[in-house]
Amino acid sequence: MISLMLEEARSAPRAVTELLATNLEEYRALGAALRATPPAGIVTIARGSSDHAAAYLAYLLTVRSGRLVTSLPMSLVTLYQAPLMADRMLAIAISQSGQSPDVVEPIRELRKGGATTAAILNEASSPLGNTAEWILPLHAGLERSVAATKSFICSLVAGARLTAHWCECEDLLQGLRLLPSALEEACALDWSGAVATLAGSERLMVIARGMGLAIAKEAALKLKETCGIQAEAFSAAEVRHGPQALIAAGYPLFAFALRGPAQREILALAAEMRQRGAKVILAAPADVPERDLTLATTWSEHLDPIAAIQSFHILAEAVSRARGCDPDRPPFLHKVTSTR
Amino acid sequence: MISLMLEEARSAPRAVTELLATNLEEYRALGAALRATPPAGIVTIARGSSDHAAAYLAYLLTVRSGRLVTSLPMSLVTLYQAPLMADRMLAIAISQSGQSPDVVEPIRELRKGGATTAAILNEASSPLGNTAEWILPLHAGLERSVAATKSFICSLVAGARLTAHWCECEDLLQGLRLLPSALEEACALDWSGAVATLAGSERLMVIARGMGLAIAKEAALKLKETCGIQAEAFSAAEVRHGPQALIAAGYPLFAFALRGPAQREILALAAEMRQRGAKVILAAPADVPERDLTLATTWSEHLDPIAAIQSFHILAEAVSRARGCDPDRPPFLHKVTSTR
Repeated sequence: MISLMLEEARSAPRAVTELLATNLEEYRALGAALRATPPAGIVTIARGSSDHAAAYLAYLLTVRSGRLVTSLPMSLVTLYQAPLMADRMLAIAISQSGQSPDVVEPIRELRKGGATTAAILNEASSPLGNTAEWILPLHAGLERSVAATKSFICSLVAGARLTAHWCECEDLLQGLRLLPSALEEACALDWSGAVATLAGSERLMVIARGMGLAIAKEAALKLKETCGIQAEAFSAAEVRHGPQALIAAGYPLFAFALRGPAQREILALAAEMRQRGAKVILAAPADVPERDLTLATTWSEHLDPIAAIQSFHILAEAVSRARGCDPDRPPFLHKVTSTR
Repeated sequence: MISLMLEEARSAPRAVTELLATNLEEYRALGAALRATPPAGIVTIARGSSDHAAAYLAYLLTVRSGRLVTSLPMSLVTLYQAPLMADRMLAIAISQSGQSPDVVEPIRELRKGGATTAAILNEASSPLGNTAEWILPLHAGLERSVAATKSFICSLVAGARLTAHWCECEDLLQGLRLLPSALEEACALDWSGAVATLAGSERLMVIARGMGLAIAKEAALKLKETCGIQAEAFSAAEVRHGPQALIAAGYPLFAFALRGPAQREILALAAEMRQRGAKVILAAPADVPERDLTLATTWSEHLDPIAAIQSFHILAEAVSRARGCDPDRPPFLHKVTSTR
């Protein structure tokens, strides 16, 4: 019997197909509204995996529109009662369950203050779904494994779709149409060669940069949740400002060398750390000869991170089992986490 | 012979006195300019420890003014050439050396685009010092230890001083005047009881929330740099959304239970993790009976994080030596790190 996590990870391409087939009018209308009245600022509100999806959306939106995005520390609202300037803001919450009060309350406050509020979420009938003005459902279906897989991928897709409609990016729209087949390809890649090294690690760093950093963060969280490995993500630049002190001989490093302007730097870092004797696992597209794992590519390099995490989810599940963990039941965690 | 790190950490109160005695006109003028023409958005630009100082500034500014602050992923400028909307923005760079191109270039681009640019930095004669419009020097003096101590504390103070002058916060100004003596008190606290547990750890989490989260991040980085411990910081809320899967019996946890609205949650988390058998080191003010380490308090609870990291710097230096590391020469690091 395969784990729920593997089953759900493999079903992500179908979930994405479903997402892309629905709510076209909502995306078009929200995009048009945002073009008609550009927001004075953009803030995302999310926790855990959903916060990583928010980070991807932030990079994509800034690259495509030049607009900066703030990731809200929710305690500013829920604990400090900061008088947030909400007028003409756009607030985007991302959540699988739509339950956690620290995601719902800031949306309520910001909407009351005049912000445009949108929720990217799987459970539309939820406190968050009842609070935000615009609802962009994930259509991931019931997710039973504690570690998010298909719902995370759908969150990334919803963010890209929102960006595409808002900024009228034809290349992203076309890339999204072709994405399910790229994700099927990503599911079929053989990453099993990395299982032994990862399974033998207690601590690890995951490296990416730019558009790929969000999925490096997600990969690190998956290794924590499902494998009990203390993995932490850094950009290829940030890691040099201190964290690289840990990377001695034998230290394991997972690097995502996605296509794009950051790729050269990741490859250089991976080579340098190999020289030090670090156990580098390099994931890169098929045209990078020194890769250990092959990354699927998509129609637009800005969508490549989605295919990369699709392959990683399947790898993480295998590493979890190899370490004797139950991928569906991480210790101490529940599917819905409620924080204030 | 004591290490440079310890010497420099202990000299932070004097450096703060020097900072507070100079540049009053600049802070007043910048504060007045920002009140006269409120920025349309605020962005910080920093790496490593300086980025943690930027995170503290962001919390403080939002709590005091309701304005949201974006932490710029510099690759958006240096690699992706995103067309950042700079008009009426306020961009604040923080850097000890003022050298790293990925801190300087965004300031140059944003200033060209019409943003107000400010640099909080130690080396005023530097590329960053020559690029930003407003210069707020740290006056930390020469810092020779690779791990930032006094310059980090001065960065926090400069951010608080900027907030105080901008938002006309008399309590913060008064608290800053009294801060050097609180920092002397923080230096004198005996945290040696925590050395053995930390020195025996290879991985660890540092917990705080709200105004204290920035110094939890800094504490985690110091443990990486100077002690070779893979420490990662989480908010007391975020840790529940996945990372707590790692916290089994024997797992070491360092918790900063600073005064303020997040304290109760930190104390509850610490108690819960102790129940699990985790090795919790709880730092809290003297009125918390279950504390392991005593936190110095300041005139304003919003300045307490500065006193907390003062004590932690001295602890980290002791842990470094206890692990047989050289606190002044972390492996693979240099004082000035240059990234793009």
